[in-house]
Amino acid sequence: MKARIHITLKNGVLDPQGKATEHALGGLGFGGINDARQGKYIELDLAENDPVKARDTVEAMCQKLLANTVIENYEIDLDE
Amino acid sequence: MKARIHITLKNGVLDPQGKATEHALGGLGFGGINDARQGKYIELDLAENDPVKARDTVEAMCQKLLANTVIENYEIDLDE
Repeated sequence: MKARIHITLKNGVLDPQGKATEHALGGLGFGGINDARQGKYIELDLAENDPVKARDTVEAMCQKLLANTVIENYEIDLDE
Repeated sequence: MKARIHITLKNGVLDPQGKATEHALGGLGFGGINDARQGKYIELDLAENDPVKARDTVEAMCQKLLANTVIENYEIDLDE
């Protein structure tokens, strides 16, 4: 079973990577960008096949290691 | 219009970040991970409202700046 995890900064948390991207795109002539935010994307290939157990495991992984829940949100999508 | 961009390493390209994640999860007692890959996730808020033009612009941004197309793939999703 595959798990796709998006980890993004919470609203209101300064995102210097996103600002740098926005600025660099502006410098290349790409205008019309109101905002840019950058996050992490993790794909896990799990041996677990039960969606409920898999979600619990990935949730625990996010809480313990993958995301800094003080400043980051995470979103988990599972597929076969 | 919002654009969500996933930038991932191509298959076969060594992913040290993913390997480190896999190893660290293993060290915390999370077994059963066959593979972990890590990529970037960028959200852009564009002034452009025409989906065709927006996709062309974001495609050009990926080619010129956001992705290293020698070793990375990118995927663009647009929504209102």
